[in-house]
Amino acid sequence: MKLLAFISALMAGLLTSTTSSAESNLSAETEDCLMCHTELHPGLVASWQNSRHSRSAPEQAMEKPELQRRISSETIAESLLNVAVGCYECHSLRPDEHKDSFEHNGYRINVVVSPADCATCHAVEADQYSRNLMSHAHGNLVDNPLYRDLISVVNNHYTYADNQLTIGEGNRLTDYESCLYCHGTRVEMKGLVSRDTDFGEMKFPDLEGWPNQGVGRINPDGSKGACTSCHPRHDFAIETARQPYTCSECHKGPDVPAYKVYQVSKHGNVFNSTGSAFDFSTVPWTIGRDFSAPTCATCHTSLIVSEDESVIAERTHQFNDRLSWRLFGVPYAHPHPRKADLSDIVNTKGLPLAVELNGEPVADYVLTKEQMQENNDRMKSICRSCHSTPWVDNHFERLDNTIKTTNNNTYEATKILLDIWAGDFEHGLPQGGNIFDEEAERLWTSIWLFYANSTRFASAMAGGGDYGVFAKGRFQTAEQINRLLERLKLYHALQNKNTDSGKD
Amino acid sequence: MKLLAFISALMAGLLTSTTSSAESNLSAETEDCLMCHTELHPGLVASWQNSRHSRSAPEQAMEKPELQRRISSETIAESLLNVAVGCYECHSLRPDEHKDSFEHNGYRINVVVSPADCATCHAVEADQYSRNLMSHAHGNLVDNPLYRDLISVVNNHYTYADNQLTIGEGNRLTDYESCLYCHGTRVEMKGLVSRDTDFGEMKFPDLEGWPNQGVGRINPDGSKGACTSCHPRHDFAIETARQPYTCSECHKGPDVPAYKVYQVSKHGNVFNSTGSAFDFSTVPWTIGRDFSAPTCATCHTSLIVSEDESVIAERTHQFNDRLSWRLFGVPYAHPHPRKADLSDIVNTKGLPLAVELNGEPVADYVLTKEQMQENNDRMKSICRSCHSTPWVDNHFERLDNTIKTTNNNTYEATKILLDIWAGDFEHGLPQGGNIFDEEAERLWTSIWLFYANSTRFASAMAGGGDYGVFAKGRFQTAEQINRLLERLKLYHALQNKNTDSGKD
Amino acid sequence: MKLLAFISALMAGLLTSTTSSAESNLSAETEDCLMCHTELHPGLVASWQNSRHSRSAPEQAMEKPELQRRISSETIAESLLNVAVGCYECHSLRPDEHKDSFEHNGYRINVVVSPADCATCHAVEADQYSRNLMSHAHGNLVDNPLYRDLISVVNNHYTYADNQLTIGEGNRLTDYESCLYCHGTRVEMKGLVSRDTDFGEMKFPDLEGWPNQGVGRINPDGSKGACTSCHPRHDFAIETARQPYTCSECHKGPDVPAYKVYQVSKHGNVFNSTGSAFDFSTVPWTIGRDFSAPTCATCHTSLIVSEDESVIAERTHQFNDRLSWRLFGVPYAHPHPRKADLSDIVNTKGLPLAVELNGEPVADYVLTKEQMQENNDRMKSICRSCHSTPWVDNHFERLDNTIKTTNNNTYEATKILLDIWAGDFEHGLPQGGNIFDEEAERLWTSIWLFYANSTRFASAMAGGGDYGVFAKGRFQTAEQINRLLERLKLYHALQNKNTDSGKD
Repeated sequence: MKLLAFISALMAGLLTSTTSSAESNLSAETEDCLMCHTELHPGLVASWQNSRHSRSAPEQAMEKPELQRRISSETIAESLLNVAVGCYECHSLRPDEHKDSFEHNGYRINVVVSPADCATCHAVEADQYSRNLMSHAHGNLVDNPLYRDLISVVNNHYTYADNQLTIGEGNRLTDYESCLYCHGTRVEMKGLVSRDTDFGEMKFPDLEGWPNQGVGRINPDGSKGACTSCHPRHDFAIETARQPYTCSECHKGPDVPAYKVYQVSKHGNVFNSTGSAFDFSTVPWTIGRDFSAPTCATCHTSLIVSEDESVIAERTHQFNDRLSWRLFGVPYAHPHPRKADLSDIVNTKGLPLAVELNGEPVADYVLTKEQMQENNDRMKSICRSCHSTPWVDNHFERLDNTIKTTNNNTYEATKILLDIWAGDFEHGLPQGGNIFDEEAERLWTSIWLFYANSTRFASAMAGGGDYGVFAKGRFQTAEQINRLLERLKLYHALQNKNTDSGKD
Repeated sequence: MKLLAFISALMAGLLTSTTSSAESNLSAETEDCLMCHTELHPGLVASWQNSRHSRSAPEQAMEKPELQRRISSETIAESLLNVAVGCYECHSLRPDEHKDSFEHNGYRINVVVSPADCATCHAVEADQYSRNLMSHAHGNLVDNPLYRDLISVVNNHYTYADNQLTIGEGNRLTDYESCLYCHGTRVEMKGLVSRDTDFGEMKFPDLEGWPNQGVGRINPDGSKGACTSCHPRHDFAIETARQPYTCSECHKGPDVPAYKVYQVSKHGNVFNSTGSAFDFSTVPWTIGRDFSAPTCATCHTSLIVSEDESVIAERTHQFNDRLSWRLFGVPYAHPHPRKADLSDIVNTKGLPLAVELNGEPVADYVLTKEQMQENNDRMKSICRSCHSTPWVDNHFERLDNTIKTTNNNTYEATKILLDIWAGDFEHGLPQGGNIFDEEAERLWTSIWLFYANSTRFASAMAGGGDYGVFAKGRFQTAEQINRLLERLKLYHALQNKNTDSGKD
Repeated sequence: MKLLAFISALMAGLLTSTTSSAESNLSAETEDCLMCHTELHPGLVASWQNSRHSRSAPEQAMEKPELQRRISSETIAESLLNVAVGCYECHSLRPDEHKDSFEHNGYRINVVVSPADCATCHAVEADQYSRNLMSHAHGNLVDNPLYRDLISVVNNHYTYADNQLTIGEGNRLTDYESCLYCHGTRVEMKGLVSRDTDFGEMKFPDLEGWPNQGVGRINPDGSKGACTSCHPRHDFAIETARQPYTCSECHKGPDVPAYKVYQVSKHGNVFNSTGSAFDFSTVPWTIGRDFSAPTCATCHTSLIVSEDESVIAERTHQFNDRLSWRLFGVPYAHPHPRKADLSDIVNTKGLPLAVELNGEPVADYVLTKEQMQENNDRMKSICRSCHSTPWVDNHFERLDNTIKTTNNNTYEATKILLDIWAGDFEHGLPQGGNIFDEEAERLWTSIWLFYANSTRFASAMAGGGDYGVFAKGRFQTAEQINRLLERLKLYHALQNKNTDSGKD
């Protein structure tokens, strides 16, 4: 009767007609919101009506057996306990902290609901997420001077004049929709603006950096992150967060092609072929019964149990507690950073990187071998649900090998670039120049940012040969490292020619 | 009971057993067709049997309440009113206009069913489509001499001899399966040919440019377009047309990556994660009840209502009536053209483009600011079903900014190319040469055709950072514009060398 | 009632609760296995419990009417006939041939189940597969010295010193996860190793090249292939094998982008839009009733019938018996090889290729025109289920044209490369060098390996224009062939410069 259960869950979950919300105990305030907003934003309201929030109150949710609980806070304010989680319940919290709070038809409303608000009911998840590298994605990017140089090369306007290209000023709107789409913007209250509405002239907050749902968004209440990155508004469905499409929004590009690799992995194949019969709604999530192949969430986030309710993996919103390596190398993959906030990282050359230029990790900032082992053991225990110990161990041996070989190739490429800088052919670290804006620098960047990273993701997820071979992997690495050397030779040739001319 | 309704719709719609068609009132002629063709082409016939066409007659369909009507013609010929829409009903229309008409077992049959035939029942849609840019996709491509130059560079055969590569003649079969796969071929009647069949020797039309289902196909009756581009034969299901896979056939490549962008957008994420519970069959299409995230059709085509049957968007088959900009820049994005037929467009330099070389639109051919505003307002009213006004306005402010910045970069690249042409280093406009066939020209082409266009699509659809950053966006723009400058410098260097040599 | 049948099939097939296996007649040995392994590997066991294997015994399966039979062996050992196909039934077969056989709790168990084991019940499929090119994918790659050169360029480590890059030794772990992920590793028994387990210290086989599920895996019993490539463990579902995601694991990269092309084809569009209502479980597979658009399996593998049970296509696991051409050109597409084992192929220049350097196929190794016609006729009879004869014939005329034009462009590129080698500018065939490791060689490689192949796949599968145009097709071919010529000119220029200098 599994499928009927699945259908029931779907019916209950995703497409329930709006009458069901009437059954819930809505607060008077939320009823008030709905009076206008049902007509103004019918899709938004319907999405909420289809959510668990609209149909359940925290007190019920807290009564569930431990493994089935979807709420982690031990205490919740009395006023919220017995009403459905409606508009007002979320958009009115902690107004004094919310700079985006405004008077609206007699209520004080916040535009942006933040992880610190969600923590009202989901305290453990909010706390874990604050230690997740992703929650610091804004600052870890824009507060790092090296990365800022890369942003300027990619996002800023170029001007051609006098046979030169000049990189112009930054453009905040461009930044919002490019890097910060994933990393998160800083959402700031600029003030109130008036607007004519169907209900006469009204005032609304004018927010800089809005809209945004990036994982490291800086919220007007000072908190970091956006739960809606993975639990999209307004149904916030766990069914969505557990599917790989959610992660693919930010993990598909050539720098972090996790989703593409998954798609051509055996895991992805089984998910794509039979996943329509998986049950993505159950808590806990039972391996073999609810799903037969892992999605991203299975290995990185969800509470996983076996049929007999033995816990295979604890729920975590601090994904890095199962990760030993940071595969995404800048420019080298290295043991995972200890802390989520990378702003104080600096190597012996004074660069804001957790590695030296030769690939050596900076020990103070990264996991010890023992910590790496612990994290890896947590991951392996999930793998072993379906795979034998030698299968799993051999897989990770291959990953370690690939981290080593890709780092080695990056090192050889770096040596060529260092020679180019040493010859003053391009202006990099010795010259205090932007290290991403000239031809050889761009070749070098592509080697680690695109091809070494892609190769490592393909290895880590046992995902198809081609993302590590012909698609954006080793073939391209070989191509670019050879072009980098040719570039050095060209510079030498031009220099000799000039020198020769000088001698004439 | 939503899902059961969905299941019923599916059962009724897509996989009905063939007995149901027996219930319909088939014409004697169609019964005759089925006698042989059921055996000859079982898949084709089954597809039709699963269609709405096989199970309903126009008169019933016309009796539906206005919002639910799937037929827009006000009058339909008596002979067609009370029979199911079968083989003969579609393949026998307007034989005098159909040059592909032929005698077949006592009937006069057309091979190609055209929009002018479909207009019998779907008059409004056919009329709207005639004003859709897509219906003119054939002529707008092949009648434009600049685009023909691009086609020759891409499609024609290269010959290497005497240290030169020569571009050969065009190859019609290549054109059919490349550019014209999407743009549409010209289908022409070459005459009748005999063929041995299970029923003895028979004569059939020999058609040039066939098969084809491109959006701007020139049909043997002189009409333009192929309804089967989006409503594939022979079930012509609205369920298919409403899903983004349909659009992806032609809107996935690096020049127009709309589908790729959608996939990594929040909209795409929700569709991919929960879309299996959407109801794609209903007319009208109710936001929040039938679907919780837009597909391409939601914003560009479908009749959208809210639960209370208020119309949020009218159905249109002239997609550009909700578009203010033409994002696809050749070489600049510009206000949308006023007419679907672009054949008379010419700029001040005599080029068949709606922009000047500096990016200025040619006012006579494009929408006025007021018209752009009107179109944009139509689009925004759909956005506001789920998003607040500031959210929507800020989104479009970012798009306007991105149109400006990408056009600006294209302009800087164009200035470099103009210098290359001015120096006679490559043969472009001043020399009357093909502007797409040399190295700097190709770099310039990639900047606007692939990278500026991709960046704009990513912006327009709020779709993931990476299609506007690392995938095929701003990173590549920066790379190529720098290479374009390097090319100019190389040409200068070679010239100086030659000049120096001359001086010796 | 079709959909209910579909739901029933799903319920019976994919998500049956574990109780159903209790109904089966498990062998005592398998019961023993399950005692521990249910707890150790709950996901693995659940996957098997959801399989047909766990719920049926061979004798029942053999009683089915011919068309419905899923087992092809005419006789099966008495001991296996009346028990479910459990752990022991598969992992204990032919121990004397299995070098990976080991003593395990009183049983002799093989780690790796091979096609020769599956042949116990699926003899015809195993036999057909042995004539499928894919079963020889390991040897056809690694025993070919030219391909080994390509592997070394792609997979081996580069070292930069003295202004040169040197290609280092091969790395077996890299090979396993790159080329051999798809082509298959050689799995070899290295001996037994002890490991502490929950049940005390135990000994397990230590296997080189494990895990792997590549199509040409060399198994410890000497057999070739892995049925799990397409029928993933441990439910081995035909539902998975019939979906294109399975093929995409290895057929998505730029060298063989079959899946990408399918996705933007009309076939892919219909599958993606309505495939959730297809029935992927039925044997035989009925066109129009079970599915309305072909997947890879429809045209290349499955037993296809029409509603009246006429056979449209026989089941085959030797996919090439419907293929006339080998589209994947190295460097030219050519008539399909006659045999699956390509190890004895050699052209007149002594190269291990089925073509000469000018594109001429080596007649002894490839299909005759008559054999090509036979294979193509088999394919066309499937096409004609849904398409008219002229439609089908014109499609294949376009494919023939595209094979010719892409081969021609490869030939022109090869002539340029031959001039580069003749000038001793790079070290290729005349010099006895690796033909893939220098800049012009890499440009030449990309022309046929990526762009000609992509263009041919786009043509063969009538799949969207863009994979043959702007995505990775004719645009890139034109770009690279021009760059190849520029390279030759650069070499000449540098030579002249040096010669000039010499003259001074």
